[in-house]
Amino acid sequence: MKVRRSKIVGVLGGLGPEAALAFCQRLLERTPGVRRDQDHLRVILDNNAKIPDRTAALAGRGPSPAPEAIRSARLLQRAGAAFIAIPCNTVQRWHPEISRAVRIPVLNLVEITVNAARKRAQGGCAIGLLATDGTRRAGLYDACLARRKLAPVHATEAEQRRVMAAIVSIKAGRGRARARTALRQIARALGRRGAGAIVLGCTEVGLVLKDGDAPVPLVDSLDALVEETLRRALPRSAR
Amino acid sequence: MKVRRSKIVGVLGGLGPEAALAFCQRLLERTPGVRRDQDHLRVILDNNAKIPDRTAALAGRGPSPAPEAIRSARLLQRAGAAFIAIPCNTVQRWHPEISRAVRIPVLNLVEITVNAARKRAQGGCAIGLLATDGTRRAGLYDACLARRKLAPVHATEAEQRRVMAAIVSIKAGRGRARARTALRQIARALGRRGAGAIVLGCTEVGLVLKDGDAPVPLVDSLDALVEETLRRALPRSAR
Repeated sequence: MKVRRSKIVGVLGGLGPEAALAFCQRLLERTPGVRRDQDHLRVILDNNAKIPDRTAALAGRGPSPAPEAIRSARLLQRAGAAFIAIPCNTVQRWHPEISRAVRIPVLNLVEITVNAARKRAQGGCAIGLLATDGTRRAGLYDACLARRKLAPVHATEAEQRRVMAAIVSIKAGRGRARARTALRQIARALGRRGAGAIVLGCTEVGLVLKDGDAPVPLVDSLDALVEETLRRALPRSAR
Repeated sequence: MKVRRSKIVGVLGGLGPEAALAFCQRLLERTPGVRRDQDHLRVILDNNAKIPDRTAALAGRGPSPAPEAIRSARLLQRAGAAFIAIPCNTVQRWHPEISRAVRIPVLNLVEITVNAARKRAQGGCAIGLLATDGTRRAGLYDACLARRKLAPVHATEAEQRRVMAAIVSIKAGRGRARARTALRQIARALGRRGAGAIVLGCTEVGLVLKDGDAPVPLVDSLDALVEETLRRALPRSAR
């Protein structure tokens, strides 16, 4: 019998760099049947922290991240990656350009996360969203939810300012406990306003909030990407 | 004034894959003056778990890891890395071959770690060693210590069997608490037998033991590599 080998995973990281490492760590922990190093997937990560700020670009206050992200995507393609996972939600605004620039598939994080949230939503068709200003402004989740006839439940403007402050402080590696408290309060508020599940639609939010932190399911985009990556990279027999 | 840019760090990982992620995470945490994603170093990691087992090769029970490690080193060179850090001690046995195969520097983990241990050793010239069977068999640390007129303090054969069992269980992601207890006991025994500092000369050992776990300084090879990487990659003004 021919043994099917696992595929090389390309990770376009740096947006932010810690979320990309958390993604790689979760891939390790969730790979089934590991007894020695060689049972793990080969992962090539370009943790390219130099990609320009996504939210700033969407607000017209900085350059587009697309050219540098495309350079990283091509680097991963040349290195032999079978597909590319990008553990960042805001940059999905440029997913079409990045996808077109390479011949290998670039996973669509927003679609993957919404599919995971739909499966877990409790009664009804409203999905809460915790995300950056950039992701909200670009309407990335709104459009994807609308295509599935699901309604978004957004943070209020005052709440959103607290969400963004929490994300910035997580990225800077400080005030994590305070960020967690704020995000948890807002997640619970979204639940009270009718969300049947809440998407943690920014990879930094998933670094501090966990499923169980609110009465409704919290669906972490980073976790959804881990599951999809394992599904694509492992041979069927190993899943 | 011309601003000196930081260099791209190449990380040849997968030996084991978790140690390489811990290395990248510590680089993030110890990079000074970070206020936003872009202040971090760009790191390209080939977490190539498919590189053959190093200790098995040194025992004549498996293929050499060198050809696959060289492929990864060349991949990092092509990707634009300024130098290569390899967060694994045992593979340093093949450091000369890997170094010769690329034009960029490959950091010498054993030299870096011994230099760090020498600075911290308390009185005398004996350095304890916690490492894999392969690293011991290859005499990597013994040779480096001898060049600096330092004496090694080794685990007994019975202790070494416990060290190796602990490393294997850490790599498999299980029995971490038990592994930690065993390694701590042996570190303390090395201290009683005259070690003025103890080298954690296997990256997996540094995942569970911390400085302070024994009465003498524990010098983690992973930490020493982080410091050297920051020194080389950051512009002088940022250090």
